[in-house]
Amino acid sequence: MARAAQDGARAGLAGVLVAPGPDLVWLTGYRPTAMTERLTLLVLIPDQEPTLLVPVLERPDVERAAGSAALRLVTWSDGDDPHAAAAGLLGPDGAFGISDSAWALHLLGMQRARPATRFRALTDALPMLRAVKDAAELARLEAAGAAADATYGEILGARFAGRRETEVAADLAALLRQFGHEQVDFTVVGSGPNGANPHHEAGDRVIEAGDAVVLDFGGLMHGYGSDTTRTVGVGEPGEAVRRVHDVVRRAQQAAFEAVRPGVPCQEIDRVARALITDAGYGPQFIHRTGHGIGVTTHEPPYMVEGEEQPMVPGMCFSIEPGVYLGGRFGVRIEDIVTVTDDGGRRLNTTDHGLQLVD
Amino acid sequence: MARAAQDGARAGLAGVLVAPGPDLVWLTGYRPTAMTERLTLLVLIPDQEPTLLVPVLERPDVERAAGSAALRLVTWSDGDDPHAAAAGLLGPDGAFGISDSAWALHLLGMQRARPATRFRALTDALPMLRAVKDAAELARLEAAGAAADATYGEILGARFAGRRETEVAADLAALLRQFGHEQVDFTVVGSGPNGANPHHEAGDRVIEAGDAVVLDFGGLMHGYGSDTTRTVGVGEPGEAVRRVHDVVRRAQQAAFEAVRPGVPCQEIDRVARALITDAGYGPQFIHRTGHGIGVTTHEPPYMVEGEEQPMVPGMCFSIEPGVYLGGRFGVRIEDIVTVTDDGGRRLNTTDHGLQLVD
Repeated sequence: MARAAQDGARAGLAGVLVAPGPDLVWLTGYRPTAMTERLTLLVLIPDQEPTLLVPVLERPDVERAAGSAALRLVTWSDGDDPHAAAAGLLGPDGAFGISDSAWALHLLGMQRARPATRFRALTDALPMLRAVKDAAELARLEAAGAAADATYGEILGARFAGRRETEVAADLAALLRQFGHEQVDFTVVGSGPNGANPHHEAGDRVIEAGDAVVLDFGGLMHGYGSDTTRTVGVGEPGEAVRRVHDVVRRAQQAAFEAVRPGVPCQEIDRVARALITDAGYGPQFIHRTGHGIGVTTHEPPYMVEGEEQPMVPGMCFSIEPGVYLGGRFGVRIEDIVTVTDDGGRRLNTTDHGLQLVD
Repeated sequence: MARAAQDGARAGLAGVLVAPGPDLVWLTGYRPTAMTERLTLLVLIPDQEPTLLVPVLERPDVERAAGSAALRLVTWSDGDDPHAAAAGLLGPDGAFGISDSAWALHLLGMQRARPATRFRALTDALPMLRAVKDAAELARLEAAGAAADATYGEILGARFAGRRETEVAADLAALLRQFGHEQVDFTVVGSGPNGANPHHEAGDRVIEAGDAVVLDFGGLMHGYGSDTTRTVGVGEPGEAVRRVHDVVRRAQQAAFEAVRPGVPCQEIDRVARALITDAGYGPQFIHRTGHGIGVTTHEPPYMVEGEEQPMVPGMCFSIEPGVYLGGRFGVRIEDIVTVTDDGGRRLNTTDHGLQLVD
């Protein structure tokens, strides 16, 4: 919490305001039992005690959280104006960073109570707050990645043809839990034309011989995320799938080789996109190349055009180029990668070749 | 959607901006598969086609939603500035209502892109948007309430003494599902001193003979919420529990009898609080008396001091006074009530007397 306030000061912030969600869990261990309209807000100001404004009803919950001993608790009761209470914890002016996912209701209330105070979204003002992982965090991300890899290894032995996507997705979820995940967040099984929708989860479609199948799965293990994608062929998926798969595989590899401290994050996207565009599939690569990962599955830094943030050792993010041919099939390959002192290291290490399943 | 825009215009709004969450589900049937940092926003402006700004990746999901045919879809791609895209859908000035739970990230982005536009939280600007239920909605709330009542009827026959709170909570969840709930949101079992924390859910404590036990449970059935509370005695809970229970029961009844069109919502809180205060327990009634209910469990109108909104036939809300004696026990009694043309009608109808369980 002290470092967050100091980092904020260096970025020109008078303080940092943290709403319930991943930032609050990361800083204090406190996760409200339910997200409601009642305001909970952590106020971090340099050289001041971290202060949590909390509904009086929820004080006992806070007191059970790991980091509660380090917090000054200020409570408000139903009928009080929580935004006036929050404003009382801020200075009369200056700029405050605020969690991306703080409710508009509360931001507007504080803006009304403190018209001279400016607010900036934390990912804009302090994008690096959680981006560089320490050794303990990296160890957890490695463990989550290894569990996802073990899941992929097992699913290759499963039956695909003749089963619904949802059945394979249930296998993936069970395997992730078996290998230690406490939470499964997504199990995408995109077979045939469904694979051409990168946001498809899993549906009733029965997988057929000859399909390409996009498998994208992950969740949380010891509070840190996994996220990996492989595209497999059911029996022999044919020449078109093989050609696209090879393009995506080479794009993923080229982007990985571009990972190096000091290089802007957007360079990862540019390298992958250039290779795919040269192969003629640029318009079919319809998303950014990657996203940071930690206590959330999506967080800064983003590997996207316009992100000039230089890479720093300890950053962890996905590299996941894809090509989507509407009505036919999709291919995506994704590893989590960490930045080392002189390059990158994959936290997912299963083979990138087109694996054939039954 | 047209009514929301027109209601907004009458409240001085140039338009209404709806983020993913209950308002969006209620208006369009669309619920994104995951809440992420990617902006999805419904823009409602009088006499204009409802427009949904959506990440291009998620367009296929929108197209499957019940209300998608009524929407103009505008997509943005990774690397685009979604806030500039949103700003392009608004006028250059005027005031827009925005969902309470819209992310601060997006509100700040739109404020930057449209400095002359003002924004107001929807519960401030249009608190009545979802508050008055139509006949179909009321029927669903009645069905959910009846299922919760059936759950209470069954749990009275369960064993309490010697079992953990979590076991009784699991019984409540199973019963709610058995009686038709598709989602269980909370199953509070607050035995003995745990009942004195109104936010306690259920823990490892083994329930003992002589305990008072607060049971507060609910969820969604056909998309609409249930929420009811009764406090039971295990064997004979003794004179102190009986005395407090009688005060809370009378407070709930008096507040119910105050329900009438045209009466300000805060009057419900005042009536319950006055009775409890007169009995000497005012400082131990530490929360508001109630909240609206519909597609969410907590929504306007709130039965709290300062809420001057008059009651209107079709409003549905909880009346749930409680008294919490720290370290000893708590008592709460809660029904969902709807406003009729000449008073109120309970959607929970189980007995308010102190029931004794084994």
